[in-house]
Amino acid sequence: MTIEPFDVVDLIRTKRDKGALTTEQIGWMVDAYTRGYVADEQMSAMTMAIFLNGMTREEVRDMTLAMVATGTRLDFSGLSKKTTDKHSTGGVGDKITLPLAPLVASFGVAVPQLSGRGLGHTGGTLDKLESIPGWRANVSVDEMMAQLESAGAVVCAAGSGLAPADGKLYALRDITGTVECIPLIASSIMSKKIAEGTAALVLDVKFGSGAFLKDTEQSRELAKVMVRLGEDAGVATRAVLTNMNVPLGLAIGNANEVRESVEVLAGGGPADVVELTVTLARHMLELAGITDADVEGALTNGQAMDTWRAMITAQGGDPDAALPVASEHHVVTAERDGVLVEQHALPFGIAAWRLGAGRARKEDPVDHAAGIDLHVKPGDAVTAGQPLFTMHTNEPARFERALEALQGGYRIGDAGEAVQTGGPLVAGVVEA
Amino acid sequence: MTIEPFDVVDLIRTKRDKGALTTEQIGWMVDAYTRGYVADEQMSAMTMAIFLNGMTREEVRDMTLAMVATGTRLDFSGLSKKTTDKHSTGGVGDKITLPLAPLVASFGVAVPQLSGRGLGHTGGTLDKLESIPGWRANVSVDEMMAQLESAGAVVCAAGSGLAPADGKLYALRDITGTVECIPLIASSIMSKKIAEGTAALVLDVKFGSGAFLKDTEQSRELAKVMVRLGEDAGVATRAVLTNMNVPLGLAIGNANEVRESVEVLAGGGPADVVELTVTLARHMLELAGITDADVEGALTNGQAMDTWRAMITAQGGDPDAALPVASEHHVVTAERDGVLVEQHALPFGIAAWRLGAGRARKEDPVDHAAGIDLHVKPGDAVTAGQPLFTMHTNEPARFERALEALQGGYRIGDAGEAVQTGGPLVAGVVEA
Repeated sequence: MTIEPFDVVDLIRTKRDKGALTTEQIGWMVDAYTRGYVADEQMSAMTMAIFLNGMTREEVRDMTLAMVATGTRLDFSGLSKKTTDKHSTGGVGDKITLPLAPLVASFGVAVPQLSGRGLGHTGGTLDKLESIPGWRANVSVDEMMAQLESAGAVVCAAGSGLAPADGKLYALRDITGTVECIPLIASSIMSKKIAEGTAALVLDVKFGSGAFLKDTEQSRELAKVMVRLGEDAGVATRAVLTNMNVPLGLAIGNANEVRESVEVLAGGGPADVVELTVTLARHMLELAGITDADVEGALTNGQAMDTWRAMITAQGGDPDAALPVASEHHVVTAERDGVLVEQHALPFGIAAWRLGAGRARKEDPVDHAAGIDLHVKPGDAVTAGQPLFTMHTNEPARFERALEALQGGYRIGDAGEAVQTGGPLVAGVVEA
Repeated sequence: MTIEPFDVVDLIRTKRDKGALTTEQIGWMVDAYTRGYVADEQMSAMTMAIFLNGMTREEVRDMTLAMVATGTRLDFSGLSKKTTDKHSTGGVGDKITLPLAPLVASFGVAVPQLSGRGLGHTGGTLDKLESIPGWRANVSVDEMMAQLESAGAVVCAAGSGLAPADGKLYALRDITGTVECIPLIASSIMSKKIAEGTAALVLDVKFGSGAFLKDTEQSRELAKVMVRLGEDAGVATRAVLTNMNVPLGLAIGNANEVRESVEVLAGGGPADVVELTVTLARHMLELAGITDADVEGALTNGQAMDTWRAMITAQGGDPDAALPVASEHHVVTAERDGVLVEQHALPFGIAAWRLGAGRARKEDPVDHAAGIDLHVKPGDAVTAGQPLFTMHTNEPARFERALEALQGGYRIGDAGEAVQTGGPLVAGVVEA
């Protein structure tokens, strides 16, 4: 029998009474929770106390490193290239990883992008890539290393061996009302990223109606906490605050987001997707020591597209294969002439989810062909009868509930009326 | 499948964000927790949120009545007598129920005293009475009714059918650091008392080192919340705030506390035990409409003793039987001449517990003969070599750890030095 060095009830009382926990206490608690000695009901009281009383910078660092220590940690130091990675807090139409990873890798750095699946109204990168016939998300560590040397980029599933405490704790927070807590969000994200072993990390921290944290100041605070955490853990980290009040790009779904990403890699695509891809690529390259890259050029001259094709092919995918198309389509048109003054991310995200593009539970499948294609963006002039967006699904019964979600989700106003986008796409950068 | 009217995560979020829960939400939550639909980890996040954000008067009432509704509720309205009851928040040497219940019943009111067992350093009334050969704590509802009509008083085990939610919730709070929370303490105590069906209730709310709540103001707040709760639930309720910085009486244990109680019923006994018994009896009788009772007289003229004998006999006990005596004794004497200026309840309670009088876990047995007899009280003059107290146990190995607990637990000072008792025994009364 192990002799336990602490009593978890004492630790809960300390946090409950606004005290700070020591490195040893947090290290023990996270380990003891992972091995089942500290019970779920005890950890849940602790997380509520953390939610309400906060954590110091040192506590957040200790919590994060303790979660990293519960699992394996990848080591990319044997690669011939520098590693640089990106993480997004999630949004509607956020397919940026798809053009970004090959774009950055095309400049000779390694981009190991361990990703997740979508849940609720925000999509998941793996779900999008699984639209591509033959492509597989599961890659061994050896395959990952080889692909980083050859193609330069790999987007794959994060194995359960990385920070297992995080998975257990996240599931607990999800059912106990303690999700929207900056120290716990920060340690959850950063524990995975630190375990992943990247040397540099750019965080895309979103705010607005379609983001996890609606409030800009809360997002900025989360960004600061994560940047400090990266610094404390020896990962060069930078955060970009980006606007998620409006869907990103014109495609919301899975296969259609892959199509849009390929357009960006071919030098086209919507302006906002290109802007964010280029911005994040510059930051990732800068952290890897490359300051003179012609990022826009790599999108137009085929350099990034070549890396994309290599990356998809290495994981069994056929970059030339036709992507799935839904059997049913429903076009929504403008009822009047005017200007599109509102287009809110959250209702469009929920509508795409209801069409089958997202899942309510982890074990649900997604319909890769389901989703929404936007035909206009805020500020665009429209005329009565002009298509505003098209919904796709394989189950026509889903249209009705998707349309319900879109009530109040967009609005046509008069010419000259203020367009409600909640400000510019990139709202700021947080550096160490 | 039951369709659940609420999502517990929404309710947790409401309390987490300092909102108030509705009567329907609390009623559902307590019921759903009792039947296992709401999980322990969810209830534990809720109790931590309640601990940190509090509850309104209406919420505490709803919580209490919801816990009552999870079980059966006794009905004494068929008795020919009025019912009046007492509850103590627990202390060291607190045997008051033993003389008090027969004393009050001897004036023709019914005293249904459903009690618990001791845990930690505070004793339990049932443990004390079980020192009496033959006496049994388990009594059916019919037996209870008959005994209330004949003897007038019954002290027995509270069946698990009364407010089962309380037992489940208390066990959860115990392991999640949410015990010392006034709304939850109040609803726990009052749910049992309301389910017990008494018409009137006097609460002995203790403060000081040997009490559950150390702080006088916290005890006063608890008293207020419980008195309001009684009022809201139709039980005439009054609270007496009493000092638990010093052990009550001279006996701490089980059999020795019965002996001391019998002395009080015989017109003797320590002054503080008599004072508190008489004070609480007056309040209980007043709430039952009897304002002219000669309470002191009933202790000296045998009236209360007769009721005691009838009450013990009715539950199989022999009031004349010899009580258990321990095999081992250890006398601690004064090292110098002077005055006993300190005698702290908590260390004496812990020492008696370590001698075997108390239990660490619910399923542990107690040693009825174990305990401590005090020979002097604060303010008494002592001479070097004079016995201060005697420890009793059947396991001599226990003396050492009991003595350790008593380090700093008492002190002999100079004549004229201030005696530290923390003020008078009865510090106040809280009425509706």
